[in-house]
Amino acid sequence: MTPSPLARPFPALPQIAGARPAVARARYKEWDRCDLTFVTLDEGTAVAGVLTNSKCPSPEVEWCRNALALGQARALVVNAGNSNAFTGSRGRAAVEAIAARAAARLGCQPSDVFVASTGVIGVPLPIDKAEAGLDAAFTAPACDWLAAAEAIGTTDTFPKGAVQRAVIGGRTVTLAGIIKGSGMIAPDMATMLGFIFTDAAVEPGFLQQLLSAANRRTFSCITVDGDTSTSDTVLAFATGKAGNPPLASFGDPGADAFAAALDALCLELAQLVVRDGEGAAKFIEVQVTGATTDGSAHRVAMSIANSPLVKTAIAGEDANWGRVVMAVGKAGEPADRDKLSIRFGNTIVAEGGCAVTGYDETPVATHLKGQEIEIGVDLGLGAGRATVWTCDLTHGYISINADYRS
Amino acid sequence: MTPSPLARPFPALPQIAGARPAVARARYKEWDRCDLTFVTLDEGTAVAGVLTNSKCPSPEVEWCRNALALGQARALVVNAGNSNAFTGSRGRAAVEAIAARAAARLGCQPSDVFVASTGVIGVPLPIDKAEAGLDAAFTAPACDWLAAAEAIGTTDTFPKGAVQRAVIGGRTVTLAGIIKGSGMIAPDMATMLGFIFTDAAVEPGFLQQLLSAANRRTFSCITVDGDTSTSDTVLAFATGKAGNPPLASFGDPGADAFAAALDALCLELAQLVVRDGEGAAKFIEVQVTGATTDGSAHRVAMSIANSPLVKTAIAGEDANWGRVVMAVGKAGEPADRDKLSIRFGNTIVAEGGCAVTGYDETPVATHLKGQEIEIGVDLGLGAGRATVWTCDLTHGYISINADYRS
Repeated sequence: MTPSPLARPFPALPQIAGARPAVARARYKEWDRCDLTFVTLDEGTAVAGVLTNSKCPSPEVEWCRNALALGQARALVVNAGNSNAFTGSRGRAAVEAIAARAAARLGCQPSDVFVASTGVIGVPLPIDKAEAGLDAAFTAPACDWLAAAEAIGTTDTFPKGAVQRAVIGGRTVTLAGIIKGSGMIAPDMATMLGFIFTDAAVEPGFLQQLLSAANRRTFSCITVDGDTSTSDTVLAFATGKAGNPPLASFGDPGADAFAAALDALCLELAQLVVRDGEGAAKFIEVQVTGATTDGSAHRVAMSIANSPLVKTAIAGEDANWGRVVMAVGKAGEPADRDKLSIRFGNTIVAEGGCAVTGYDETPVATHLKGQEIEIGVDLGLGAGRATVWTCDLTHGYISINADYRS
Repeated sequence: MTPSPLARPFPALPQIAGARPAVARARYKEWDRCDLTFVTLDEGTAVAGVLTNSKCPSPEVEWCRNALALGQARALVVNAGNSNAFTGSRGRAAVEAIAARAAARLGCQPSDVFVASTGVIGVPLPIDKAEAGLDAAFTAPACDWLAAAEAIGTTDTFPKGAVQRAVIGGRTVTLAGIIKGSGMIAPDMATMLGFIFTDAAVEPGFLQQLLSAANRRTFSCITVDGDTSTSDTVLAFATGKAGNPPLASFGDPGADAFAAALDALCLELAQLVVRDGEGAAKFIEVQVTGATTDGSAHRVAMSIANSPLVKTAIAGEDANWGRVVMAVGKAGEPADRDKLSIRFGNTIVAEGGCAVTGYDETPVATHLKGQEIEIGVDLGLGAGRATVWTCDLTHGYISINADYRS
């Protein structure tokens, strides 16, 4: 598949001590590529996660929700090409079989095994293929994160990863993350599938606190099409191999640095998903300020970012700020038309309830011809602010989704 | 413009005693067509209306909201090609000038004049063109409803109208309606611009009650793109010329019949807007049953009808019920994956939390190849139900909206 015009090169991701990725061909679809990822985690690995709020979650999501309560992990299994969502008891049986087989190999509890799947909805994951794939991955040599990032992808057009470092008590810790997702992206808690590995020692409860906070500022602030997946999953694994004094609260030295690194990593991963949005040709940042609350600003920003008329206007490089007014108006949040101001890039095009007369259209046109678009809205009411990210809506989205067969 | 493949022929709309339509060229855009519609209403005409809930409404919407409080009307002016929304004090001045000029001609109060405008957002309506157009319309011969339906259109591909009749106290009354709208359609109270004229005698308060109720079941149940306009307006005018005993409550003979006719008229008009949805190739009815409440059913149905992934699947004639599951799951309403059933046309394709094994795909494929698509979802929880209407999402929508210049 041709990489998105917004694609970024895969960064040099280092190994994470205590985490060993491997990939195999389970052949969940008629393709000749690795589609099963197996990451072995050393004993003592803490885990945290954020999962979809969909009322129709996949059995994998339910499995992870239960397993997260224990806070520890020994393995992660990711299947690509079949989401196993809405498959009833057969789907649940497939997840249980995968966890049992991995646990038997590793000599751990099934609840130490985390499972995620992505792909078509409604087809039970074939247990025989999963088991054969798992066996092949066990005996395969370790791979790098690039191979894992490629193996978890489906309609993704490029592999996506990010790395951050922080110093905790004199020890440098590393965070590496991989993510997949391109359509059905409007994470309600997390994005499609994202996995973060760090050698830092972090208590599970604190890791969960940090991940949940980062999620609210990152994965929950992106949208491709407003369609929330049944399988959204982000898991963070901390192996503790860096040997730092374990982080248990913000009072611990280095906790702020680690939290900042985790935030930065999540933001990079989230934005990479937008850059691979189905059919995307432009990356759009929507900044809303002056709202009554941050939550209100977020809802206004999402109303703009999910508006098909705004997204098609950006695709057409049209400074159609009237559609931004429309999207503000429909958000249902406090807004006063006559206090609103709107800018594209650095140019204010409308304020005080009407267009800015005689504004210079040249920088606006230049900005809209670029790949990185910024829409700013000031509501003029209070101090609430939010930033969200999306992509434009193009013929590519229609081609991809009107032709994709279930 | 090529008519939508879902277009319907304009019906034979009779004259409504007491309502006299005329059209003129105000030339709000560079086009040679009538774009100003002026309907003179006889004294004693009652009026009711439903207007957008947008927080950024046009000055026309604000004007109508104030004028509706008085319950009487002598004229309706509709401008096409310029919505006059978000134009500050100049926009308000334009509406006031139009109302004043019409009132002076008719010897009535400005508040007896209702004004609606549709088209580009952000450009003040030119007062000189409006006044010249008004003057031309005053001296023009009366036109038929077809000419008026054409004159109020913008990106519409076909003129839209409907007629209903009811018997009240032995008198047959007639209701004629015209409507425009194609994109930016997710009415929060009403659809883009719709106007209903009847010779029935109905007290304004009761007319408002009936229109509001009809709106909840019709205009508020359609969506093209989930984008709620700044200018949505539906007005109903009752001239009273049929000579029936005036309707003031459901206790009056004929009130039920009139309400049913008004409902049927609104439903026809609302569905015509969907049939002219931008780029639409298929008309989709979404029926949700088994919800905990009717309101919950409506929100689930709208989540399905607004999902770009569901709408592109229908465009691709793909029985991708997994996307329907996704849309149910993201609605945030009570749902139990394992009690859900989904059908296309009359064929249940999924129930009890998984696909129906071995269902006959032939009738499903035949149904999806048609122009009239039915998606049924039973949540299996209660007695709540709702039906909404939308269209598919095609390349046509992108072409229309990525190329439309502000």
